[in-house]
Amino acid sequence: MNSGQNDASEQHDTPEQREKYRERMQRRKIKMEARIAKANIDRGVFVVNTGGGKGKSSSGFGMLARSLGHGFRCGVVQFIKGRQDTAEERFFRQAGGDLLDFHICGEGFTWITQDRERDQQAVLAGWEIACKMLADPNYDFILLDELNIALKHQYLSVDEVLRAVSLRPPKQHVVITGRHAPDALIAAADTVTEMRVIKHAMKAGIKAQNGIEL
Amino acid sequence: MNSGQNDASEQHDTPEQREKYRERMQRRKIKMEARIAKANIDRGVFVVNTGGGKGKSSSGFGMLARSLGHGFRCGVVQFIKGRQDTAEERFFRQAGGDLLDFHICGEGFTWITQDRERDQQAVLAGWEIACKMLADPNYDFILLDELNIALKHQYLSVDEVLRAVSLRPPKQHVVITGRHAPDALIAAADTVTEMRVIKHAMKAGIKAQNGIEL
Repeated sequence: MNSGQNDASEQHDTPEQREKYRERMQRRKIKMEARIAKANIDRGVFVVNTGGGKGKSSSGFGMLARSLGHGFRCGVVQFIKGRQDTAEERFFRQAGGDLLDFHICGEGFTWITQDRERDQQAVLAGWEIACKMLADPNYDFILLDELNIALKHQYLSVDEVLRAVSLRPPKQHVVITGRHAPDALIAAADTVTEMRVIKHAMKAGIKAQNGIEL
Repeated sequence: MNSGQNDASEQHDTPEQREKYRERMQRRKIKMEARIAKANIDRGVFVVNTGGGKGKSSSGFGMLARSLGHGFRCGVVQFIKGRQDTAEERFFRQAGGDLLDFHICGEGFTWITQDRERDQQAVLAGWEIACKMLADPNYDFILLDELNIALKHQYLSVDEVLRAVSLRPPKQHVVITGRHAPDALIAAADTVTEMRVIKHAMKAGIKAQNGIEL
């Protein structure tokens, strides 16, 4: 991870060295400010978090916290996972107050419900709620948690999702999470991150922890 | 991303197909339950979010939300970034109430402050606060946001961080975020995710957005 840049290995003890550092940071400041100034389009973004590693949903909830901190009207639809993850729901329902609509659709992982038809119905009910949010300019931020899993199982078509997302109000942010994001979704998104597993506690025999996974 | 598994392409129309699906999910259930039962160690975990992609800090804040949802006592120390990101602070200070201690150290990116000595002093002041939390069994969850950047700049030694983390109370969770996580930190952590950029809105000229980046 630590692909050595030059900051770390330098000495910074003498006034000359400190001045050199300041000059280098001044040059970086000019470069960074130019880069920031160049990014001048101001509109809602479409974010996708995918990959097999930890952090896809939790990052979505972190952005939800930021959005609520800005006083944004927010909507959350949780697909697939079902009723087992309640800590984030409990926290955000209370903390979000009137700014937040929080919906949970589905009754658990596919291997828990074992009923494809019921799973699909739950997803379609969730998608109906999501569509109303995506068509409503009063919503500033929408999190569709684990929707990629629903797409992967073909409970819903990618085309339908892309149509609703592309027709949304221009200032609205949308975050979609879950493994196996379809290529068409990645192509349409503004910001896409692959959460890659370097290691996971569960492989070392540590059970899922409240506050971390749950 | 969508490395085709077999769920998606199947037909599920006839009763026989539905029954086959149910049987397959039943087998998966047995496998998953065995995997979960095998992970029976119950202790605090050490999580590292690194890489160049979006989601390192926001995932940390998502876990903070989960932890607060469980009624955990939580501590946050934000290194490096400084006073520009206030939405998460505003939100969590209010929502976390007495359960949360939130500290911001540092006055901005290195290229903003341009003063290495002042940056290091801010990091060391933050680290002192972090050390008190890491030694206190009353804290259930600690987020050290962007600490990896401080390590990268050698404001603080990795050994010192690893010592404090390894000596912490056994049930305490610690999350460290930031690009360039040192290899020794990765080796010591339980769960490590590399947030990998697939694409980023800024490259397409879209400015950093409230609720997403800020």
